[in-house]
Amino acid sequence: MTTKEFKVHYHQVDQMGVMHHAQYLYVLEQSRINWLQNRGVSYAALEKSGILLPVVNISIDYKRPLRFEDTFFVHTILEHAERSFVDFSYVLEDEQQKILTKAVTRLVFVSAVSRRSIHCPEDLKSIFSNN
Amino acid sequence: MTTKEFKVHYHQVDQMGVMHHAQYLYVLEQSRINWLQNRGVSYAALEKSGILLPVVNISIDYKRPLRFEDTFFVHTILEHAERSFVDFSYVLEDEQQKILTKAVTRLVFVSAVSRRSIHCPEDLKSIFSNN
Amino acid sequence: MTTKEFKVHYHQVDQMGVMHHAQYLYVLEQSRINWLQNRGVSYAALEKSGILLPVVNISIDYKRPLRFEDTFFVHTILEHAERSFVDFSYVLEDEQQKILTKAVTRLVFVSAVSRRSIHCPEDLKSIFSNN
Amino acid sequence: MTTKEFKVHYHQVDQMGVMHHAQYLYVLEQSRINWLQNRGVSYAALEKSGILLPVVNISIDYKRPLRFEDTFFVHTILEHAERSFVDFSYVLEDEQQKILTKAVTRLVFVSAVSRRSIHCPEDLKSIFSNN
Repeated sequence: MTTKEFKVHYHQVDQMGVMHHAQYLYVLEQSRINWLQNRGVSYAALEKSGILLPVVNISIDYKRPLRFEDTFFVHTILEHAERSFVDFSYVLEDEQQKILTKAVTRLVFVSAVSRRSIHCPEDLKSIFSNN
Repeated sequence: MTTKEFKVHYHQVDQMGVMHHAQYLYVLEQSRINWLQNRGVSYAALEKSGILLPVVNISIDYKRPLRFEDTFFVHTILEHAERSFVDFSYVLEDEQQKILTKAVTRLVFVSAVSRRSIHCPEDLKSIFSNN
Repeated sequence: MTTKEFKVHYHQVDQMGVMHHAQYLYVLEQSRINWLQNRGVSYAALEKSGILLPVVNISIDYKRPLRFEDTFFVHTILEHAERSFVDFSYVLEDEQQKILTKAVTRLVFVSAVSRRSIHCPEDLKSIFSNN
Repeated sequence: MTTKEFKVHYHQVDQMGVMHHAQYLYVLEQSRINWLQNRGVSYAALEKSGILLPVVNISIDYKRPLRFEDTFFVHTILEHAERSFVDFSYVLEDEQQKILTKAVTRLVFVSAVSRRSIHCPEDLKSIFSNN
């Protein structure tokens, strides 16, 4: 598990006064890129090496809203990895450790050239199993 | 069912060259607001009358990517309505009617004042049952 | 001049209840891509042919705000073109033809390969002079 | 002057492979909210007290592009303050202190209730003059 702290920015808040539900996807993206970085993997370098990791499935439960300037934490957990995909789960908590939102995503390994599904590269296998 | 046509805008595309996965949530939002409008309900007027319809759950399957200037269609279907929530499903298709993405969302009726869950207002009941 | 109609989407509105000032840049982008399209130029095809048109300067005057579901019109005007850049101006008006916002942008012709400034391609010259 | 460090997020990058020009406005917004915070002013509290600070004019020169995972710094400078508005300038630099982008914004003091221009509140005057 890797935890990353966030703060709600002004532009992320809609006219209900809460963080717009689409903005959470950017937060999840930053959280899993940070998860990779904490294990020595730069997502920028990964893409340059020809491996893409697009999201093919996402599911989110919004439980409690976030407001402008709220601090929150995203815990990113590797749930499961197969040859061609990897599942992360995410728990968003506020400063009192109340659960705000839960999410799961499936990412697939894709070749940047062929745009087809590939197996997890050898040098990433240890990252996606030792958790 | 209500269908709305979209085109992928430049800013919606990421460096993989495809519409970023978070952008689909804006498209779904516009589609269900359009669904309401086609049944005589202005979402702006609904909010002004004190009723909010936040998303509490969303689930998306991304099957085929969209590129800049691609035309696509979103079919919005009312799946199910209960006293305090309403479920929509969405099918995104390209011009050859190939399915691109499928999604479901749950929206809850919330009072703008108390920010608590309320029952579906009387004047909206017919809209959420005659489909 | 080319005019394009827009409507303010829910996610574009911030907690002040008005369209967020950054959202106007997406609207201007769509307006000038539409300007090109009306003259037979697909911006997608242009990029594929190796020519990029990044914005190097932008200036906006916000005069009157826009609210959710407001309809507005963007008039895009080619102001000036030189060998290596092109200047557009934009006037945003509401349905009563009140001016909402004015903007100017400078775009430069850039090679996708070298990422350096290039001259306006021969086949685009007529478009950028016959206005 | 107040300096804030940023990193380019994945979703901020367009298919040219550079940070989309509209994303800079979110960065400037965060930078000036941070400038206020460093002087003891919470923008969230300011809004709750009935004072809005919308942008009425913005001008940006994009000199050098930013790519995914690039680190950059925004220096926010109070340029000038009058009774009813305040001008900030911004300089974006990379890690080698090369200038990437320059911008200026004008913000006006607006009453949340009347939505009309007001004078700078008494308790903020010292912040906008002692720089």
